[in-house]
Parts: sequence; structure tokens; C-alpha cells
Amino acid sequence: MKNILITIEYDGTNFFGWQRQPDKRTVQGEVEKALSTICASSIKINGTSRTDAGVHAFGQRASFKADFKIPVERIKVAANNLLAGGQNSLGAAADVRIIEVAEVPMDFHARFNAVAKTYIYKIRNCKEADVFDRNYSYQITKPLNIGAMKKGAAHMVGTHDFKCFQAAGGKEMDSTVRTITSLEVCEDYLEDNDKIITIAVTGDGFLYNMVRIITGTLVDIGKGKISEEKIPEIIKEKKRENAGHTAPPQGLYLAEIYYK
Amino acid sequence: MKNILITIEYDGTNFFGWQRQPDKRTVQGEVEKALSTICASSIKINGTSRTDAGVHAFGQRASFKADFKIPVERIKVAANNLLAGGQNSLGAAADVRIIEVAEVPMDFHARFNAVAKTYIYKIRNCKEADVFDRNYSYQITKPLNIGAMKKGAAHMVGTHDFKCFQAAGGKEMDSTVRTITSLEVCEDYLEDNDKIITIAVTGDGFLYNMVRIITGTLVDIGKGKISEEKIPEIIKEKKRENAGHTAPPQGLYLAEIYYK
Repeated sequence: MKNILITIEYDGTNFFGWQRQPDKRTVQGEVEKALSTICASSIKINGTSRTDAGVHAFGQRASFKADFKIPVERIKVAANNLLAGGQNSLGAAADVRIIEVAEVPMDFHARFNAVAKTYIYKIRNCKEADVFDRNYSYQITKPLNIGAMKKGAAHMVGTHDFKCFQAAGGKEMDSTVRTITSLEVCEDYLEDNDKIITIAVTGDGFLYNMVRIITGTLVDIGKGKISEEKIPEIIKEKKRENAGHTAPPQGLYLAEIYYK
Repeated sequence: MKNILITIEYDGTNFFGWQRQPDKRTVQGEVEKALSTICASSIKINGTSRTDAGVHAFGQRASFKADFKIPVERIKVAANNLLAGGQNSLGAAADVRIIEVAEVPMDFHARFNAVAKTYIYKIRNCKEADVFDRNYSYQITKPLNIGAMKKGAAHMVGTHDFKCFQAAGGKEMDSTVRTITSLEVCEDYLEDNDKIITIAVTGDGFLYNMVRIITGTLVDIGKGKISEEKIPEIIKEKKRENAGHTAPPQGLYLAEIYYK
């Protein structure tokens, strides 16, 4: 019996999210199918984060325990060959790939051992929409006040009860207190004052839709709908309706998971 | 009655190519539907290039004549609103957009008046496939000899009978002589000797699948399957089977159309 940790990259566009669902194409479902074939037994994996439909990942992690014959170092190539199987043969890649496979101690668990995560959210703040970026960013054509967004973000950093940034419908949590260790709003200028705004947030854990609601709140600050000065009060009042809208899934990327 | 020239950008992934087809989603079909609504009459447009399924465009052109009430300068916004109609409201763009609309003289025709075109072909020559680029490049994991590809490309420039680079199944042409005025192979280095190879080809006209066969031939040169020195002979012999494979559609972009 071995315990294996895999790192997975995916384009979430054509998946019904991470979590296995009967009769729906999900990331977990596809990866489990490939690993079950390779390991010649029914493999169930434990993912670190249940990303929603349309959300992408540069570095999702999952672990599984199994008895199998194939050497650990061959799992990656074998799984990626299977994952690419349904695709066009000529240079078309799959929309999910395993980028790393490692053997870990038997008591390791991809979710329970994670101490922090980084998510990236990409906003395309350009006067004209872009057809190629439609599944990979939140496109906002009106200019956003980035200075105000940065000030608003600074107010969110720290250990707080983030109930105001929790969507209904998620798992009931014992506590809605979380620690955001870093929340950066960065801009890259394109021509003609168009820009790409990248929000990078690192924390010890995130509530249901928390990153998308944080982003929506920052966008509402950038549009002048919410004052950046109000953030401490909004957090204190713990009411979802005081925070901003939920930004759409296609701009969100699960970037990195950290272990001790 | 006015004569209108439009410039169109599209992500070809989810289209059955440019040309109108009953019961299939095509770029021409979608644009005609939007323009017909706006102009309150049945609009048929003449595109410059019939791109295949999966092929993209930064600057496709099409012209149409019609009597309509809406001011010319409002067509772009009105059409783009309709084209985005079926999409997710939150910042998701359409996969086809009109980027320019201009009134032109009555005797102007988007295809017949075109004197040259530029196509771009994007190859991702990286050790690992990329999930996000799978619909937007030809992914080749084995390293390509770019020096040899550049020499091969230089042999293709000029006025030649390019029958060897014509796929079967296209329209019967009076002549297969064309002039390639420029064919550049450029590389951008990423980390660890991974690279993006961009092929830019400009000519007065292209035969059916000609850019994809030119690219496939250059890739075969890059892999050492065809010698770059053989190109003049391959062109002279006019046999499709002497040239390389047909590169897949997803790396191809119709970049620019030139008029006098």
C-alpha cells in the first residue's frame, strides 16, 4: 500500500467543477477514472479544494492510497496519456493534466495537511472585450479605481470572522474565522490604458465562494459602489448583503497549496 | 443602399468554421443573424476567407450591401450586444466580435478587392503540454530545429506553383500559382529551453489548407523528417504527398487582410 500525492492543472471551462458527480464530467471523476485504469483498482482521491464549474487550477492537489504494480514515477505519463485520450491527436492537449506525482508518508492527507492556499483572480479591465480570454478572466469594460481596490484589500488582510464573504449553499462550518496572510491587487498595463488586474490571495482556508465574493467586493469598490473605508465595518457586521457581488468563476485559479 | 465592410475577431473553437451551414453554428451564420436583426432585413455577408472549424481570426473581413435605418457607427455596439446575448452575463464575452465597421464605395467587395492576407500559426514547442493553450496552438513536445525551419521557409518565398501545398477537397482553382511575399519563423524563449514558435505568412492568396500544409512541412523539417534543401524540388514536383503533414486547425489565425 502506498500513499500518493498528485498535483493537477486544469482548464475548468468544460468541467462541472472538481467534485465527482454521477453522469457529469468533473475533474475528480476524470482523474479517478485514469488512475483506476492505471492502478487496476477503484481509486478514490481526496482533493484539497472543491473548485466550482468554470474555475481553473494551476496546482490543485489530491492524495490517494492504493496497492499498485506500476512504478510511482510512471503514473504521471500513463495518466496524462489516458487523460488526453479523448482529444484530437494532432497536438491538442487534454484540459486536465497531472503535473507532479510523489509518494508521501501514510498519514499524509492532501486536504487535512494543507496549511495555506493561494488563489489568483484575473480581471481584464479593457475597453473592448476579448474573445480569446472569455473563459479565462472577468472582463470589465468600465475603468476601475485600482488605488481604492488596493486600500480595500489591505483592510481584509488578517484574522477575521469572514462570514460576510461566505455564500449560502456551502458546507456548514464550525467557524467562519479565517486568516488572510496576503491579498495583493496588481496591475499590468496594456496599450491605451487597458489593463489586466491580478488579485492574489493567500490564507489558511477559505469559506464557500469567499475568493469570488472578495473579488466582487473589490470590483464594487473599484466602480465606486462600495467605499474602501467601509470594509472593516462590513466584516464586523457579518452580513453577506453588505459585501459586493460574487465575481464569476472563469477568472479564478487555484494557484498553490502549501504543506508544513 | 449602403456598402459596409466589417472586421471580425473570433475564437474558432466552438464554430463549425466560417461558412454558413444549415443547423450548424458558424461564424458567418452568427454574424448574419445579428446583422439581420439590426438591419431589419435578411443580410448575407461576403467573407474574405473561409476559415475551417477550429481556426481563429484576429481580422477576418466581410462586406454586405443593405438598406437600413441604424447609423453605421452604431452597428458595431448593437451587433456585439446581440452576439454576446447567449453568454453568461457576468463579464463573459462572446466568441465572435465585430471590431470595426466602415462604409465603403458601392463597388467594393471584401474578397475580390483583397490584395494580400497574413496568417499567423502558433506552435507551442514545450516539453510539457499546456491545458490552457490546447485550443490555441499546435503543441509539440519534441524539440524542433528552428534554424532548419527558417531555411526551409526561405525556399518557399516567391511566386511558385504551390500545388504541393494544396489539400484535396477545396474549390477547383484555375491556377495554383501564388506569391508568398513573406514567411517568417520566429521564436520566443520561455524557461528551460521551452519556446513558442510563430510562423507569419503573407501572400496574395492561399490554396485550400495551404498555410496548414506549409506549417506541417516546416514542422517535419524541424523534426528532421524532411530536408530543408528539398523544398525547391518538392515545389517543382507539385505532388501533395512529397510535402509534410497538415498542421491542425487550432494553431491558425487569420491575422490581416490588405486592400489597395
